[in-house]
Amino acid sequence: MILFMRKLGIGMVGCGVVGGGVLAHLTRNRDLLQERSGVDFEVVRVAVRDLQKARGIEASKLTTSWREVVEDPQVNLVVEMMGGTTLAREVAEATLKAGKPLVTANKALLAECGEELFALAERNKVPIYFEASVAGGIPILKALREGLRANHILGIHGIINGTCNYILSRMADEGKSYEEILLDAKRLGYAEADESLDVDGIDAAHKAAILASLAYGFWVRMDQVYVEGIRKVSALDMCFAKKLGYTIKLLATIQPNSERAVEVRVHPTLIPSTHVLASVSGAYNAIAVEGDVVGNTLFYGRGAGPDATASAVLSDMAEAGIALDAGCVYRGFERHSFNGQTVPMAEVRTRYYFRLTVLNKPGVLARVAALFGAHDLGISSVFQPEDHDEETVPLVILLDYGKESSMRKAYDEIMKLDVVQTPCQMIRVEDFS
Amino acid sequence: MILFMRKLGIGMVGCGVVGGGVLAHLTRNRDLLQERSGVDFEVVRVAVRDLQKARGIEASKLTTSWREVVEDPQVNLVVEMMGGTTLAREVAEATLKAGKPLVTANKALLAECGEELFALAERNKVPIYFEASVAGGIPILKALREGLRANHILGIHGIINGTCNYILSRMADEGKSYEEILLDAKRLGYAEADESLDVDGIDAAHKAAILASLAYGFWVRMDQVYVEGIRKVSALDMCFAKKLGYTIKLLATIQPNSERAVEVRVHPTLIPSTHVLASVSGAYNAIAVEGDVVGNTLFYGRGAGPDATASAVLSDMAEAGIALDAGCVYRGFERHSFNGQTVPMAEVRTRYYFRLTVLNKPGVLARVAALFGAHDLGISSVFQPEDHDEETVPLVILLDYGKESSMRKAYDEIMKLDVVQTPCQMIRVEDFS
Repeated sequence: MILFMRKLGIGMVGCGVVGGGVLAHLTRNRDLLQERSGVDFEVVRVAVRDLQKARGIEASKLTTSWREVVEDPQVNLVVEMMGGTTLAREVAEATLKAGKPLVTANKALLAECGEELFALAERNKVPIYFEASVAGGIPILKALREGLRANHILGIHGIINGTCNYILSRMADEGKSYEEILLDAKRLGYAEADESLDVDGIDAAHKAAILASLAYGFWVRMDQVYVEGIRKVSALDMCFAKKLGYTIKLLATIQPNSERAVEVRVHPTLIPSTHVLASVSGAYNAIAVEGDVVGNTLFYGRGAGPDATASAVLSDMAEAGIALDAGCVYRGFERHSFNGQTVPMAEVRTRYYFRLTVLNKPGVLARVAALFGAHDLGISSVFQPEDHDEETVPLVILLDYGKESSMRKAYDEIMKLDVVQTPCQMIRVEDFS
Repeated sequence: MILFMRKLGIGMVGCGVVGGGVLAHLTRNRDLLQERSGVDFEVVRVAVRDLQKARGIEASKLTTSWREVVEDPQVNLVVEMMGGTTLAREVAEATLKAGKPLVTANKALLAECGEELFALAERNKVPIYFEASVAGGIPILKALREGLRANHILGIHGIINGTCNYILSRMADEGKSYEEILLDAKRLGYAEADESLDVDGIDAAHKAAILASLAYGFWVRMDQVYVEGIRKVSALDMCFAKKLGYTIKLLATIQPNSERAVEVRVHPTLIPSTHVLASVSGAYNAIAVEGDVVGNTLFYGRGAGPDATASAVLSDMAEAGIALDAGCVYRGFERHSFNGQTVPMAEVRTRYYFRLTVLNKPGVLARVAALFGAHDLGISSVFQPEDHDEETVPLVILLDYGKESSMRKAYDEIMKLDVVQTPCQMIRVEDFS
């Protein structure tokens, strides 16, 4: 039985869609959170841009100055919900310097300034909580850092951008073009007005950098993450992939190579349609983690949106409250004695799908195959759809495992062949072998 | 940087297959565990039944007396790996009374004596760690208690017995009988020599009781869990289910009804083949958790075996070590102000699949349908396979949602019809609507 319960003062900076979701769910599930954490919360100060917008918060608690929130002596804990990296970084730094725990869902901030922020946190012995920054409501960071802590991570494969997965799922189901589905996704609220952060893979790369950093215990910088977005994926590729038994997903791949350097890459990927990740559709996220002790695991749920994010933010708030109450010693970023290197993309070995547009005449396949062979790239299957009989036809080729730099060279040479026309397409293949 | 690291003395009671796995992985990944937890472990004392069996432990550390392990002043933490509930309970109680944290994978112990053990833990302010007791290496208890703590749990649906899932998956894939696959499963080590604990659903019921207790914050007793095993599932049912778009799994269902009492039941269940749980095959486990904030989540991985279990036990050991080091205050079982009632099976409302053996003559369906109708049970679809034209034929009927007690009455009356022969079969249906 809890006889005395401390009330924890929450300061919130930013109160848009996600911050509003956190407040709404905190109000609704406050009793439950108390029962489960032994901590009571009270939002005491909220910094917003526009005081006039109604948010269901007493006017006396609102301010336009984030400093007032951070410096308020009644604020024990700062929840940063503003997004972006410039002002958010100032808020984060001021919070840590004030000796107050920071809760954030800001993946860009952590991917770009995580090392510096955690160094500052270390100096001030204040924890940063950031479960909501990756895969929304799925407690994947807790799983990696705690539940699977006895495991060397052999690989992480994740669908970690809901917008891209929504678009690709609908393309696969409906056979429509990227452009058509994107427009509809914007109309339905599944894509932002400016879609680039999502569809160019930047958001997924931020999350991949965070996952990789936690899994391997060194800070992976954004310039160490290889990124390709989904704009170039066509309805034709979707269709051919399906015929070959694959589904195209924007996949984040994080895995050590034989020298224990880590690949961190985000790009469209053909995955076998029988793999559980292929069945993750719509705006859902899923992260498959393979550990050397536990084997294969998978974590699935909604990766974005105010509700899923609020679930993680509120859990972090409770965790912060428990730690503050208990006077637990500070635990920061856990560095491993890992080699701490990432693999340049040119060194990565994977499989490849090619869709070439070639002249419809004999001998073309032989010339293309010869160039792959010259670069030590084995062909595992070739597929030429029968229902094309114009002057040019699509030629689909699946390669065995080969080195990215070799693939690039072969691709360049193939594109120079007079029998090869545009458009041509290359998508990597992951067969989880 | 960690300058001073405390060495934590581990005492282990029982060192069979699972305990051996824990020791092997601890030896192999000890450095990683140190880096991730700031705690170093040393196994100082191990109680075994037979001192002669080689286990890779120095003979000086072995004993046949569990009391010696628990009472050893060098032992800071006791890992109970013996199984069973009689001696294991004595070990657990002695450990807690000695003020030492307990780590256990013993689901039977927790399901049957959890309330008493946690009360004892509370009195002694010593924590019990039991992540390994449910779903092996999947950190589902941590997810429920921590990652999803801001959520009222709207439902849990789990495949939580690997042996049953292995047998049912193979029956579905190969069209063979339960008996045939069971024999093969025993030969391959997927089923124990005495298979009853698994195939009768007891093991899954233990885990369901633990999941329900944590999700709803009151101790669910084993006699409150409805259990049916998989022995009666036939190859014919597998085949008919598939034709209707369903897959048969041993499913644990835990969900509150409209009065906030909780259903806790384990039985064979038809689930839509398109649902992600249907794709969980072989010895894998998966638990779908729906929260009122986060929405749908799913956690997947290996649910049994020495490796997956070791992953969870080692994580718990690290957690115990961190808490001991940090001097965190004790946190025990978190009771909720929930109504704390379970729903009697007779009150449960669900859908049903019937496979009746009926005489091959006109008017049979009308008589069966009339009896369902008399008990307020709506028929959603009827299926009579064409390739049976003997004297008796199978008649497959899917019912809409109805009350278990009504279904039971209708079933009894139908079985008394002169046109209905044996065998007949009833399996519940979960459509996740």
